[in-house]
Amino acid sequence: MLQTSVLEGDRLALARLLTEIEADSEAGRSALNDLFKHTGNAHLIGVTGAPGTGKSSLVNQLALHYRKPPNGEAPRSVAIVAVDPSSPFTGGAVLGDRIRMRELSGDAGVFIRSMATRGSLGGLATATIGIVQALDAAGFEIIFVETVGAGQSEVEIAKLAHTTLVVDVPGLGDDVQAIKAGILEIADVLVLNKADRPGVEAAERALRGMLKLGHPTKRAFNHHGRPTVTESSDAELAVGDEWIPPIRRTMATDGKGIVELAAAIAGHKAHMEKTGGWQLRERARLQGEVEDLLSSELMSRWRSGLDDKDFQKILDQLVTRSISPGQAVTKLLKENSQ
Amino acid sequence: MLQTSVLEGDRLALARLLTEIEADSEAGRSALNDLFKHTGNAHLIGVTGAPGTGKSSLVNQLALHYRKPPNGEAPRSVAIVAVDPSSPFTGGAVLGDRIRMRELSGDAGVFIRSMATRGSLGGLATATIGIVQALDAAGFEIIFVETVGAGQSEVEIAKLAHTTLVVDVPGLGDDVQAIKAGILEIADVLVLNKADRPGVEAAERALRGMLKLGHPTKRAFNHHGRPTVTESSDAELAVGDEWIPPIRRTMATDGKGIVELAAAIAGHKAHMEKTGGWQLRERARLQGEVEDLLSSELMSRWRSGLDDKDFQKILDQLVTRSISPGQAVTKLLKENSQ
Repeated sequence: MLQTSVLEGDRLALARLLTEIEADSEAGRSALNDLFKHTGNAHLIGVTGAPGTGKSSLVNQLALHYRKPPNGEAPRSVAIVAVDPSSPFTGGAVLGDRIRMRELSGDAGVFIRSMATRGSLGGLATATIGIVQALDAAGFEIIFVETVGAGQSEVEIAKLAHTTLVVDVPGLGDDVQAIKAGILEIADVLVLNKADRPGVEAAERALRGMLKLGHPTKRAFNHHGRPTVTESSDAELAVGDEWIPPIRRTMATDGKGIVELAAAIAGHKAHMEKTGGWQLRERARLQGEVEDLLSSELMSRWRSGLDDKDFQKILDQLVTRSISPGQAVTKLLKENSQ
Repeated sequence: MLQTSVLEGDRLALARLLTEIEADSEAGRSALNDLFKHTGNAHLIGVTGAPGTGKSSLVNQLALHYRKPPNGEAPRSVAIVAVDPSSPFTGGAVLGDRIRMRELSGDAGVFIRSMATRGSLGGLATATIGIVQALDAAGFEIIFVETVGAGQSEVEIAKLAHTTLVVDVPGLGDDVQAIKAGILEIADVLVLNKADRPGVEAAERALRGMLKLGHPTKRAFNHHGRPTVTESSDAELAVGDEWIPPIRRTMATDGKGIVELAAAIAGHKAHMEKTGGWQLRERARLQGEVEDLLSSELMSRWRSGLDDKDFQKILDQLVTRSISPGQAVTKLLKENSQ
C-alpha cells in the first residue's frame, strides 16, 4: 500500500501519494485517513509576504541551515511546499522549482513540492492541508509552506502553520504597505529581507510602529512608544503569555541573518509550547480543516440531489432579473428538499 | 424604505444600504432582493495586478475620463469599489480613499466605497457582489472593482466583472512575473502602467509572449510568433469570436494613455455584446453568486442543528489523532442527520 511505503521513507511513493492528494482522489483521501495518526510531529512554518521580497531564497537558506546547523545540532529533515497562485496556463510554479533544485537537490533530507492553483482557493487550501499532513506523517521535521503573492489567500494558508514568517523588504510602495498591515496580524516573526537595501532603518521603524498598533496595551512598549528592551533582543518581547513578533534582518542571497532568524523561529516554538499556544493553534487548525471539508461535502451532497434542468431554469430567471440571487437560493433549497 | 431612496438617487441612503450589505444584515438582504430587478445596466470593470502597479491612480484617471470625456460624449456616472485585503487592525483601506477624495470629491457623479477584509475571502466576495448590485441598481453606469494585492482573491473578485484590466509595470521581479502568468488568463485588457520607466519594451514583449502562450492556435500571430497586425491596432486582434487582450501603455500620474485605454475597454464591451460573450459572462457571474450563497446557507443550516459539545468532543479526538479529519466529517454528518 502507498501509505506503508510512505511511512517507510519511500520517496517515489510519497510523490505519488501527493499527486493523489492534489487530485482529491479516493486513494488519496483514504491514505490520509490512515496516515493521520502519524502526524503532529512536524514544525509547520508558513512563509508569506508581498511579491518580490525573496521568499524562495529565504526558505532555501533556512532549509540549508536546518540541514547543516552551524552549532553542532543534529540536522533536521525539511520539506518545502510552494503554493503558487499562478495557474497551469503557463506552469508558473516551474521556475521557482528549478532555481531551488540546484542548491538542494541530491539531499535525501529535503523534499520539495510545488502546487499551482487548479480551481478555487478553497480547493488549493484543502489540497495543501493534505499535502502537509502526508509530509508530516512521512517524518519531515520542518515543513515550510511558502505562498507567492500577498492577499487573503496567504492568510488562509497561514492558518496551517505553527509559526508564520512575514517577509518584507525595504523600499516597497504604499500599496504594499497597506497589504503588510493586513498580514502583520498573522506574523509570528517578521523578516526584513534584502537588508542591504537603502531604507532598511525606515522600514524597520515602520514595522515596529505597526506592531505597536497591534499590541497597544502591552508593557513591551513604554509610554514613549519605544520598546522597553533593546532592539537586538526583541525575541524577549514576549510579555506573559503574549508573543510580540521579533524583527529579523536577512540577506537571503548570501545567508546573512539566517542563524538569527532560525533562533527566532525556535524561540517562537518554545514560547508556544510553554504557554499552551501550540495546542490551541493545533486545535484551531484542525477545526478549520474539518469545517472546510464539511462545507464542500454538504455542497456536493446537495448538488447530487439536484436536477441540472431545474438549476438552469432558475438561472434563466436570474438573468432576466425575474428573481434575485437570494430568492434563487430559497427556491433551490425548497425544490431539492422535496 | 431605504431601497426606494436609493433608486431615487439619495446618496446617504445608498451609503447606509452598503453598510447593511457589508454587515450581511436582514435589511441588506431584503433590499438586495428588491433592488435586483433594477440591475444589469452597469458596465462592471475589474482592475487587478501586483502591488505597486498604481491601480488606484489608474482608476482615478479613468473615472475622470468618464466624467469628462474629451470627445464630446456624454459624461457617465462612476462608482469605485476598492477591495482591500488588509484588515480593520490598521484600517488599511483608509489611505487610498483619502488620496482619491482630493481629485474626485465634490462630484455627485462619482461614488467611492472601500471594503476591507472582515472575515474570510468568501465573505468579502459575497459582500462585494452585493455592493456592486446596489450601485448598479442606483444607476451608476461604470462600476470599478479594484483589488489591492495579487493572488487568488483577485481571480475570485474578477469573476464579478464584464471587463477585467490587469495592470503591470516595467521592471518587476521574477516573483511577480509568475503571478502575472496566473492572472493573465483573466485579463481582457492589459495595462502597462508607469510606461516611462526603463524596460517598458521588454515588459511589453514579455506580455505578448505570455499572451501567445495563452492563445497558441490563433491566426492573430503568424508563424514567426509576431502579431499579424501592428501593435498600435491590437484591439483588432479579436479573431472570430475570440478576444485577444490588447496591451495599453499608460502613465496614470499624468493621464497619458487613458483615452486609448478607455477605447480598448469600450472595444471589449462592443466585442462581448456582438459575440454573445456578455450574456454568457452574466450567466456565469450569477451562477457563481448563487452557488456561493447556497454554500454558506447550507453550512449555517447544518451548524444550527449541531450541539457544540458534540463538535468539541470530535475535535478532542482529532487533536489526539484518534480519528482523521475525513473521519470527523463522516461522524459529524451522521450525528447531525439523526
